[in-house]
Amino acid sequence: MTDPASPAPLPARNRGRERMESVLLEAERMMIEEGYSGLTMRRLAERCGIALGNLQYYFPSKSALVAALADHICARHRQASETWPAQDAAPEAAFEALIRYVLDDIRKPEGSILYWEFWALAAHDDHAKTAMAELYQTELDLLSEAIARLTPALPETQIRHRAEIIVGMLEGSGLMIGPGRPHAETPGPLMEEIIAAALAVATRPA
Amino acid sequence: MTDPASPAPLPARNRGRERMESVLLEAERMMIEEGYSGLTMRRLAERCGIALGNLQYYFPSKSALVAALADHICARHRQASETWPAQDAAPEAAFEALIRYVLDDIRKPEGSILYWEFWALAAHDDHAKTAMAELYQTELDLLSEAIARLTPALPETQIRHRAEIIVGMLEGSGLMIGPGRPHAETPGPLMEEIIAAALAVATRPA
Repeated sequence: MTDPASPAPLPARNRGRERMESVLLEAERMMIEEGYSGLTMRRLAERCGIALGNLQYYFPSKSALVAALADHICARHRQASETWPAQDAAPEAAFEALIRYVLDDIRKPEGSILYWEFWALAAHDDHAKTAMAELYQTELDLLSEAIARLTPALPETQIRHRAEIIVGMLEGSGLMIGPGRPHAETPGPLMEEIIAAALAVATRPA
Repeated sequence: MTDPASPAPLPARNRGRERMESVLLEAERMMIEEGYSGLTMRRLAERCGIALGNLQYYFPSKSALVAALADHICARHRQASETWPAQDAAPEAAFEALIRYVLDDIRKPEGSILYWEFWALAAHDDHAKTAMAELYQTELDLLSEAIARLTPALPETQIRHRAEIIVGMLEGSGLMIGPGRPHAETPGPLMEEIIAAALAVATRPA
């Protein structure tokens, strides 16, 4: 019955995976729009146009759903970090490109509002805490590498501390340049100052 | 019937106010322990040992309760900011004392976990957003003043930008030194680096 020249239909496992991913994307949208407390299994099933029982087949509980969402965000972040631009550039240009890359992400709802939800959640939920730790680990590793290229003589502990301070600086800048925040509309001038400030932190005398 | 020498009983208005404040304190504890989604009117009434109807007399809805809590936190923050130490010290010592004061606050659950809840909430709730804006305004004003004393020649816009960057840096540092975070137990070494980094950002050449 199947035309051998046409692509084979997806195996059931892949169709299930696609369905799960589209559910997670919708759950992410709900978290961004209404927060963790606005995300309910019943309303998510409605928004996905599937039966609640069907949703529960994939995710037996809200807690299982949010754990899967945390893993999904981590995987996306890890994947994106493998392709961030300018890894081959000169040390200062590479550092600046990395900072710009993170700041651009923080200006998006899925790079700030969603993370604020998970920060809050991580204080009460061990799975969210582990996922957030993994997520910042990726950012810390990339930044440590970029700082080490700028200041090869600096001891490793200090490189790590500076990376941690800059991660905090970037994540906290969401309060200024994130969606709906004071500099959301014209973030340019502050962003340039943030980049210069990050460079000052990375390269200040030991 | 009343002994004229004993203190007069509190007028009903003050007793009501005391009751409201103890309810808000318990609501704050619930937000810290279980997050916004764990805070329900029914369970709060139970924890306060009052009838749900009695709680609803003071706060008709969860949204009214959280709005009052946001205002309460703002008022406490404003009051604390009026008495932060070393306002009369030399510029660098005053700046450092301010940074230490904020970092010490961020190490407490009510200075980090509670704020993460409100950051998340501010993306979906206008009252929380206004309260958080007022809260950071106080911190921004204090920091701008401290930076202006360090760098009197710097244009006001740049002083403001640096204050915003340092507020972001401090708030984001909660991810490292806040309760349950990687540096929570021995924050000292990273805190000294944060203070030096903040000073580098405040005083870097224009």
